[in-house]
Amino acid sequence: MPGVPPTRFVYLGPESTFAEQALLTIPAAERGIRTPARSVPEALESVRHGDADAALVPWENSIGGAVGVTFDELVDGEPLVITREVVIPVEFVLAARPSTTLAGIRSIAAHPQASTQCRAWLRAYLPDAIVVDVLSNGAAAAGASAGEYDAAICAPIAIQRFGLHQLADKISDHPDAATRFVLLSRPGPPPEPTGNDVTSLAVWISHDRVGALLAVLTELAVRGVNLTRIESRPTGERLGRYVFFLDCTGHVAEGRVGEALQGLRRICAAVRFLGSYPRAGLGGTPEQPVPPPPGLSDPDYADAAAWLGRLRRGELS
Amino acid sequence: MPGVPPTRFVYLGPESTFAEQALLTIPAAERGIRTPARSVPEALESVRHGDADAALVPWENSIGGAVGVTFDELVDGEPLVITREVVIPVEFVLAARPSTTLAGIRSIAAHPQASTQCRAWLRAYLPDAIVVDVLSNGAAAAGASAGEYDAAICAPIAIQRFGLHQLADKISDHPDAATRFVLLSRPGPPPEPTGNDVTSLAVWISHDRVGALLAVLTELAVRGVNLTRIESRPTGERLGRYVFFLDCTGHVAEGRVGEALQGLRRICAAVRFLGSYPRAGLGGTPEQPVPPPPGLSDPDYADAAAWLGRLRRGELS
Amino acid sequence: MPGVPPTRFVYLGPESTFAEQALLTIPAAERGIRTPARSVPEALESVRHGDADAALVPWENSIGGAVGVTFDELVDGEPLVITREVVIPVEFVLAARPSTTLAGIRSIAAHPQASTQCRAWLRAYLPDAIVVDVLSNGAAAAGASAGEYDAAICAPIAIQRFGLHQLADKISDHPDAATRFVLLSRPGPPPEPTGNDVTSLAVWISHDRVGALLAVLTELAVRGVNLTRIESRPTGERLGRYVFFLDCTGHVAEGRVGEALQGLRRICAAVRFLGSYPRAGLGGTPEQPVPPPPGLSDPDYADAAAWLGRLRRGELS
Amino acid sequence: MPGVPPTRFVYLGPESTFAEQALLTIPAAERGIRTPARSVPEALESVRHGDADAALVPWENSIGGAVGVTFDELVDGEPLVITREVVIPVEFVLAARPSTTLAGIRSIAAHPQASTQCRAWLRAYLPDAIVVDVLSNGAAAAGASAGEYDAAICAPIAIQRFGLHQLADKISDHPDAATRFVLLSRPGPPPEPTGNDVTSLAVWISHDRVGALLAVLTELAVRGVNLTRIESRPTGERLGRYVFFLDCTGHVAEGRVGEALQGLRRICAAVRFLGSYPRAGLGGTPEQPVPPPPGLSDPDYADAAAWLGRLRRGELS
Repeated sequence: MPGVPPTRFVYLGPESTFAEQALLTIPAAERGIRTPARSVPEALESVRHGDADAALVPWENSIGGAVGVTFDELVDGEPLVITREVVIPVEFVLAARPSTTLAGIRSIAAHPQASTQCRAWLRAYLPDAIVVDVLSNGAAAAGASAGEYDAAICAPIAIQRFGLHQLADKISDHPDAATRFVLLSRPGPPPEPTGNDVTSLAVWISHDRVGALLAVLTELAVRGVNLTRIESRPTGERLGRYVFFLDCTGHVAEGRVGEALQGLRRICAAVRFLGSYPRAGLGGTPEQPVPPPPGLSDPDYADAAAWLGRLRRGELS
Repeated sequence: MPGVPPTRFVYLGPESTFAEQALLTIPAAERGIRTPARSVPEALESVRHGDADAALVPWENSIGGAVGVTFDELVDGEPLVITREVVIPVEFVLAARPSTTLAGIRSIAAHPQASTQCRAWLRAYLPDAIVVDVLSNGAAAAGASAGEYDAAICAPIAIQRFGLHQLADKISDHPDAATRFVLLSRPGPPPEPTGNDVTSLAVWISHDRVGALLAVLTELAVRGVNLTRIESRPTGERLGRYVFFLDCTGHVAEGRVGEALQGLRRICAAVRFLGSYPRAGLGGTPEQPVPPPPGLSDPDYADAAAWLGRLRRGELS
Repeated sequence: MPGVPPTRFVYLGPESTFAEQALLTIPAAERGIRTPARSVPEALESVRHGDADAALVPWENSIGGAVGVTFDELVDGEPLVITREVVIPVEFVLAARPSTTLAGIRSIAAHPQASTQCRAWLRAYLPDAIVVDVLSNGAAAAGASAGEYDAAICAPIAIQRFGLHQLADKISDHPDAATRFVLLSRPGPPPEPTGNDVTSLAVWISHDRVGALLAVLTELAVRGVNLTRIESRPTGERLGRYVFFLDCTGHVAEGRVGEALQGLRRICAAVRFLGSYPRAGLGGTPEQPVPPPPGLSDPDYADAAAWLGRLRRGELS
Repeated sequence: MPGVPPTRFVYLGPESTFAEQALLTIPAAERGIRTPARSVPEALESVRHGDADAALVPWENSIGGAVGVTFDELVDGEPLVITREVVIPVEFVLAARPSTTLAGIRSIAAHPQASTQCRAWLRAYLPDAIVVDVLSNGAAAAGASAGEYDAAICAPIAIQRFGLHQLADKISDHPDAATRFVLLSRPGPPPEPTGNDVTSLAVWISHDRVGALLAVLTELAVRGVNLTRIESRPTGERLGRYVFFLDCTGHVAEGRVGEALQGLRRICAAVRFLGSYPRAGLGGTPEQPVPPPPGLSDPDYADAAAWLGRLRRGELS
């Protein structure tokens, strides 16, 4: 229901992964109900059916790139909108039961992506340990806790949860790795503009029009709307047909963004609005407002609209 | 007074020139009061001061180009707007008193521009006649009528007026030459859109912005507003400073033109609106409506605006 | 060695998958040595180290999208170039040992992506069979052949190879699904232009330049080079930093493509050329030549270059 | 003859006007033969026929704008090129015979444009004097010298020439008014680049192509070539057909200008090169070199061309 803050949250599970850690940075979620989902489609369906108010799912990772399944799920089915983004550092830790020492580790449970990202550290400090693939970072911690493995590569959140202790932190080869999650809800009025917002869109271009993508970017550029990200996903029809996901600067409530959206609506085969929401800094740091380019602020838009009104009425001065 | 059709017309004189001929194609002017002015500035001042309701002045000639003085007078002083354009062929005739034959012509009165444009004909048919420069086409006819010269190069309108007869017509080297006149009034609501209108503007660009003129053209192009003419005039400040006169397709009442105008208002140092009016065919032939490009009609604009409204209210479907 | 056709091929294994099927459409590979690799990185390293002459790896799938690992491997390390693309339909079949009938199937081995894409068929025809996840389409066929499972979802190539017979074909929910593979070699002169070629690039834009991606697309558009695909991949540095993969129409040997590439070289932070090669039709059908846009053919470029030469030498005519 | 400095100069006469004053700022002209021509066409024909080596004619005035006749004469007939521009201030003086005082002036000879530009001064200092129209600034001075008029409004150059003395200087209402003259020669290698050059062009666009003028400006902008002036002139065919005169930054010998010119050659109906020559400061002050935008210098062009050569030969590094 628009205006009512969400209380029932679903997130990409299992428990004790980065997704849960990200969800806990949202105060309403910390106080509310948090349910893990087995997959992104399951999480989104849960919101679509009204079983949950909002779903937190991964959107983009600085190492692995776009999360294709989230895109694919968003362009089909009932519309959902992003109301918030959460960016958290991907800081892997090596955790084990309290009695374990580094020297005593023979086996390590890890999700394949996690062990791949920690390859250099493992080679340097535990060259002889056997790495066992498990299905999630949470499963790795659970296995170490249960004594199935000597240690686990996992998210910081799992340490306390499974009664483990941290043998080493920041063991990733990419110290600045981060993941961007989005909180999805059923449609409602977007959050208030903050002066540093993102507007996310999915656009289908007219494939028989030469330069259609250039035309899309020009509609944005001419209104001073900056494109911060573009991803393509196949539409499934046939090779060479894509839907493009755009992240733009600004908020749908702003004049320049509103005019650019209308331009896209007119020239694209289809546009799906995926939300306007505050740009998040790493780990929840609020981002500073960024003023729009000269001539493109809301007062500039208001002035131009008033002027046009005078022209149309014949009131020149 | 807006809404009241003009009855008192002023035009660039003297009498019996192409300007008067053009004015007579306007029914209200044919019925109304027609006063010649000695110059374009005088004609415009007459409207500004309320002594006349509308002024017909030359705007462009297919041989001589833009009429700089009209531009210069329009960008300074109280705003005036174009409410109509009249395009007439510049068909020079050779006229003489009834008794005169071609063979008997020794001297011909002509405005220098007129004799220049008829050089080939004169060389072919009257190689030995002396051409005497006079101040206007009307003065040429008057001189021939008074017996000062054997013949005159003049506008068709002057024949009957001065009791002359036509010895040859279409004697110009440029058979398709035409002049475009504009009818200027004090500001008021523009004429109704016809589906084939012109919007005229004067724009001052920001000279310290690289590519400023390209930006202006892009504001138009992105809304499918076609530029049919561009002229530059010095601002008088210093060499290299220009004001640009643009003729665009469409009417200020249309969505695409309105949005383009707002864009110019925001990025230009200044914009002066000079009117939206029906595009005239040669000699008063009405022009056929031209549909706007795909996605840029008023219904497309209305659809996009309604969609944006839904997005802003959170009503996605 | 440039000019010497490759004889030793490596491909993304295991055997009997779509990659091997794609490789067999290349005559030289059919006659040559074909070795499966365990991963895309292994396949590429094999070519980089000279153990193989060319590697066939997946590039794009009409359902799953870009193959991120291939992109990531191409932008790091020694340069490799695409010399050929192969597009094959992804037509899953249900295969079993000769004695098996549809009615007798209790268990089906399948790669998770394969069973996902055949969900509708399975629900309609084998709603009670248990689907067992295996690591590849080839492993599924091998398992069915060995009697571990009653049937397998696999590529057509696996039927004969494993002595199976086909119980049903075209069982995918996406009848037009296709995968695009690329053949990668060590750098050498590109294949001859055919009149319908693709040029693939990786470009790093200057992130502190507003509209940098628009500038990239404009460099292409102004030379009539059409963009047929754009993919972004994170650079790994930090969130919001991407490398873009572009597929363009035309061949590096053409004037318009050469000029566009030079433009990108000048404005981008970096450009890696990934090859110019014939555009492939589905299943090896040759594509028809497509003439360049007016004014952008090689003769047009030659004419303009000759004209410029005359201008510079002062030979105007 | 290319390479041989001109010695025989023709200029728009009569003597003792701003054109002669401008010509005298050119050392070779000061030493050479200087002949006044009765008109711009006569001056150009004199060079075309080989009777003179170079012609100095007006190109643009900061008050009156473009000099249409010079444009018109340049686009027809044998090509001529601009090899130099001269910008001089239009500083009118009031001159009279030595015995005359301001108080004794009853009649003033002046070219109509000159008296128009000095209206405020005349009203303030000589409200009762009669202004007599004459055909040139030189004729005004000659008339005053001969005693036909009490004084003349003329160019400073005329004072000494006609034995007059200066009663007042800088009497123009536009103290910064300036005129730009160009020196035209038969085609030959352009002057050496100086780092601050102008390239002048006449371009005919394809009128049936929407956005043709935008395309022209984009060809320039994409190569960082700035447009400093654009003028349109009717082609004479019919209303709405123009030839555009462009002044761009840079020299035909530069990579970016050369590439932009080739682009125009390919997309325009026709292009006439009118010369590359040093940008002149007011009164002959040399202008400072202006570095090309990032990525668009000649070394950047050379680097990109060398890189493309390596790509085409298959030499990637």
